[in-house]
Amino acid sequence: MELDEIFNYNKLDKNLPIPLYYQIKQMILEAIKKEKIVVGDMIPTELDLCERCKVSRPTVRQAISELVSEGYLYRLKGKGTFVAKPKIQAMFLNKLLSFNEEMNIKGLTPSTKVLDLKVVADNPSINSLLNLSERDKLIYLERVRYANDEPIVYLKTYIPYEPYSDLLNQDFVHNSLYAMLEDIYNKRVTRVHRKIEAVNATRKEAELLEISKGDAISRVRTLAYTKDDETIEYSIAKYRGDRNEFSVELYR
Amino acid sequence: MELDEIFNYNKLDKNLPIPLYYQIKQMILEAIKKEKIVVGDMIPTELDLCERCKVSRPTVRQAISELVSEGYLYRLKGKGTFVAKPKIQAMFLNKLLSFNEEMNIKGLTPSTKVLDLKVVADNPSINSLLNLSERDKLIYLERVRYANDEPIVYLKTYIPYEPYSDLLNQDFVHNSLYAMLEDIYNKRVTRVHRKIEAVNATRKEAELLEISKGDAISRVRTLAYTKDDETIEYSIAKYRGDRNEFSVELYR
Repeated sequence: MELDEIFNYNKLDKNLPIPLYYQIKQMILEAIKKEKIVVGDMIPTELDLCERCKVSRPTVRQAISELVSEGYLYRLKGKGTFVAKPKIQAMFLNKLLSFNEEMNIKGLTPSTKVLDLKVVADNPSINSLLNLSERDKLIYLERVRYANDEPIVYLKTYIPYEPYSDLLNQDFVHNSLYAMLEDIYNKRVTRVHRKIEAVNATRKEAELLEISKGDAISRVRTLAYTKDDETIEYSIAKYRGDRNEFSVELYR
Repeated sequence: MELDEIFNYNKLDKNLPIPLYYQIKQMILEAIKKEKIVVGDMIPTELDLCERCKVSRPTVRQAISELVSEGYLYRLKGKGTFVAKPKIQAMFLNKLLSFNEEMNIKGLTPSTKVLDLKVVADNPSINSLLNLSERDKLIYLERVRYANDEPIVYLKTYIPYEPYSDLLNQDFVHNSLYAMLEDIYNKRVTRVHRKIEAVNATRKEAELLEISKGDAISRVRTLAYTKDDETIEYSIAKYRGDRNEFSVELYR
């Protein structure tokens, strides 16, 4: 399709009381919303847009920068500016949902890759968080979880080995941990405590999440309790910063 | 003070059922908690610790790495490993508090530098979030906020110019915005919607927050409502990733 058919340059109007950068931004947004350009498409260069829109470089740059910062576009150095996938609005700060439940609500297809599932010992810091004695064994589960085949979060999960050892024989590709705890052990997670921080991705995290080393990721540490206040799970989740945002509502 | 007086090497015991790395970790933690080493102090090198503790390099490394990842220590390339300030446990995901209120609760001394306070126009995206018409003017307030003289958060705040124009004459160094809205205009913020993401610091953000460009920071965007559901404030806050963590508790 010709560029002139994608963007509605005719709509730009210097006589309107609306700033030109904003009109350009809306013009690009409209093309995205009408799916004239889709995820991964390159948009015209700044220079190209300057000429076609008959505006200055800073005006175009402001429009692009806002769209980048709002997550509609992303820049690749030396390559250009492209249409981004919309960020996933994680609800998990307001509601206790499993990853699969959340993805289903959003109309995304969840999938899971299990990297490791084994018994570990010698994690006294985690034992102490889980109120276990120092020598107690743990089940260690390492997963990457995807939405529509794109990696979203890299997860390390620890569960007391006793009495949950049968989890080692379970299928974590298709089933969620919380559902299994409920089905097999009649233990329902009713409360979690979460801590969120921004950290830079290590090389390993970057590889698994298909981003670059040093990219900002959200690290979320969760301690989960049953209704009897048993500490049943500790997990460390690394969420891609460019694909996730966490939303919360507060009152007073 | 001699190193041997700081760390209690004698307590390390290979015959204990507790892993050695964990014993070393506890030994360092004890020195921090007893204030034998304090914020900014360099701890011995890995090699030094190996010799004194009579353990292998990986054992020492695991102890140090866990303390770094838990925020007790930090590494400076080519310089060494130092005692870190404890992270500030932001409560603002569970409770609606002003920055000053939060710092006071934590026993930290808050302070504020006002970088800019002026009238702006031409921010249609923000006008639309605040339910204003595109031509309405905004008050723009730019601040860095400190805890014990250390930068914690860089904040850009937008408030409708009408009817809040008198805010331009107020002292934002000593007073909090929410308190002023209540005192001057009898408007109480009763609900906020927050979105949290991990992003890499730009050069400007890094300078203001005294970190390095590219370091992970938490970007928190807040839309605040009064009890009549008036949208009264929009803000974009950048929190130092190494100094802040956000904590939340969820039930089902």
